[in-house]
Amino acid sequence: MSKIKIVEVGPRDGLQNEKEQFSPAARVQLIEKLVKAGLKNIEAGAFVHPKWVPQMQGSDKVLRALHKRQDEGKISKSVRFPVLVPNARGLEDALKVKPKEISIFGASSEGFSKRNINCTIAESFQRFEKVMEIAKANKLKVRGYLSTVFGCPYDGRVPEKRVLKLIEKMLKLGVYEVSLGDTIGVATPRQVSRLLEEVVTQFGAEGIAMHFHDTRGTALANVLESLEYGITIFDSSVASLGGCPYATGASGNLATEDLVYMLEGMRIKTGVKVEELIKIRAWLEKRILRRLPSHVGQAGLPLPGTLN
Amino acid sequence: MSKIKIVEVGPRDGLQNEKEQFSPAARVQLIEKLVKAGLKNIEAGAFVHPKWVPQMQGSDKVLRALHKRQDEGKISKSVRFPVLVPNARGLEDALKVKPKEISIFGASSEGFSKRNINCTIAESFQRFEKVMEIAKANKLKVRGYLSTVFGCPYDGRVPEKRVLKLIEKMLKLGVYEVSLGDTIGVATPRQVSRLLEEVVTQFGAEGIAMHFHDTRGTALANVLESLEYGITIFDSSVASLGGCPYATGASGNLATEDLVYMLEGMRIKTGVKVEELIKIRAWLEKRILRRLPSHVGQAGLPLPGTLN
Repeated sequence: MSKIKIVEVGPRDGLQNEKEQFSPAARVQLIEKLVKAGLKNIEAGAFVHPKWVPQMQGSDKVLRALHKRQDEGKISKSVRFPVLVPNARGLEDALKVKPKEISIFGASSEGFSKRNINCTIAESFQRFEKVMEIAKANKLKVRGYLSTVFGCPYDGRVPEKRVLKLIEKMLKLGVYEVSLGDTIGVATPRQVSRLLEEVVTQFGAEGIAMHFHDTRGTALANVLESLEYGITIFDSSVASLGGCPYATGASGNLATEDLVYMLEGMRIKTGVKVEELIKIRAWLEKRILRRLPSHVGQAGLPLPGTLN
Repeated sequence: MSKIKIVEVGPRDGLQNEKEQFSPAARVQLIEKLVKAGLKNIEAGAFVHPKWVPQMQGSDKVLRALHKRQDEGKISKSVRFPVLVPNARGLEDALKVKPKEISIFGASSEGFSKRNINCTIAESFQRFEKVMEIAKANKLKVRGYLSTVFGCPYDGRVPEKRVLKLIEKMLKLGVYEVSLGDTIGVATPRQVSRLLEEVVTQFGAEGIAMHFHDTRGTALANVLESLEYGITIFDSSVASLGGCPYATGASGNLATEDLVYMLEGMRIKTGVKVEELIKIRAWLEKRILRRLPSHVGQAGLPLPGTLN
């Protein structure tokens, strides 16, 4: 294991679940800071109705500003800015600002699908098909999110067989990567190993990303277990942005600085500077009223040279 | 791996590092709740000068009350209540209430030794020798803490060779168990594996306990790595009591409920009921003004049957 891909989800998945709204300009500022920290894959926005997700309003402006900076050479063209689209309508909106990559979002449990994206799992895949058709015609790369793979806040247990079928369906749609989400942060390394044993055997490790939440403190243990199965792609959110909608005060998304701290401490290269992430957290703390629970963000780094 | 020994350090190591002082009666109440939760090894107090550690004042009363409950059959006699003694003087005080087990506490770095126990490492071992002599004469079991094994807040790096020598010295003193502390929570699984590779080869896994702090979010990943080396003894603190004296708001001791949640989720038996620990945290929250950062304590348990 020498190189890891981190998908930074703070500016979309993170901010979407925070009360405070960031202007498009502030989101561009955040994303520029993340680029400076070394992140190469940064979720930049979502093309959803502002009535449902006001936090993502003006995602067109964000993407336009980022592309401009890429054209001016201020941001490398190799940095990717995927945007979430919920359906064909959202994608048509997104196309106006020429994204190079989009994401689609589904669930592994009916309860979460209904409450989160307001349709059944089967219906969500019908939407995805339409989205994929347009995406292919426009030569867009598509990333697939599959949430609640280890458990659902409404349905409880999620059968592994169902998760495996849904991964297969997503891959057949033509996504280049499936991100498996422990949306409510319930998994321990046993669940991770049970699922990945099957996933990696059936689909290989290359196109599989893991998206852990630190709700019950197990996120980095689950990352460690995933590494054993050859997984090299992890989603995380700077400063642990995003919280956890199901428990006040509890941690949500795995913090990017915690992930980078552990991986770099293990001599696994991420290309990301944890000092820069700590600065970004300080910047965010002035703008987000709740306490941002990332561990490294709060504790800071040990004295230089501490780790052997 | 089927059975784990958890050493609950909340009532001593934990409370000692909290501002709020608990009366001896309140500490007995806490310990009774921990017994009810299934914990069998609970640090019950310290015989240190109240000028330095006012929180541990009345540890004699605590131990007397617990022994009385054991005599009355209200607490099983198999439950152990080690108390910390800093030196021969402390042990003489402790002997008045007839402890069955004591702990001694040393550091792997001069900086931490000087600032924390006010003597050099060499001097601390001279003290330990005197303590061990009296302990042997009184047939007490002795547990040894070795702190800052992965890094020191003052000296930074701590050479592995020194840690190995100090473990050897502690074992030669006659302690039945050495607890290796990541006192400032810097280790990642790489450091754990590097050290345990040597430790287990030289001394075996049986008498080695790991004491992790979750300061940088890596505690459970480090537990997972330790399991790989056959370690079966872990220290933890209910509700993550103890904080981290070096960073406000940052997590300190690994929370017992987080440890139990992960281990039980992995089908590794602890004998401890996480639901009871969550109740204890709620009880503590009324008495401790800072936010108690244990993850499971804040998030609660998922729906029954969620984990496969």
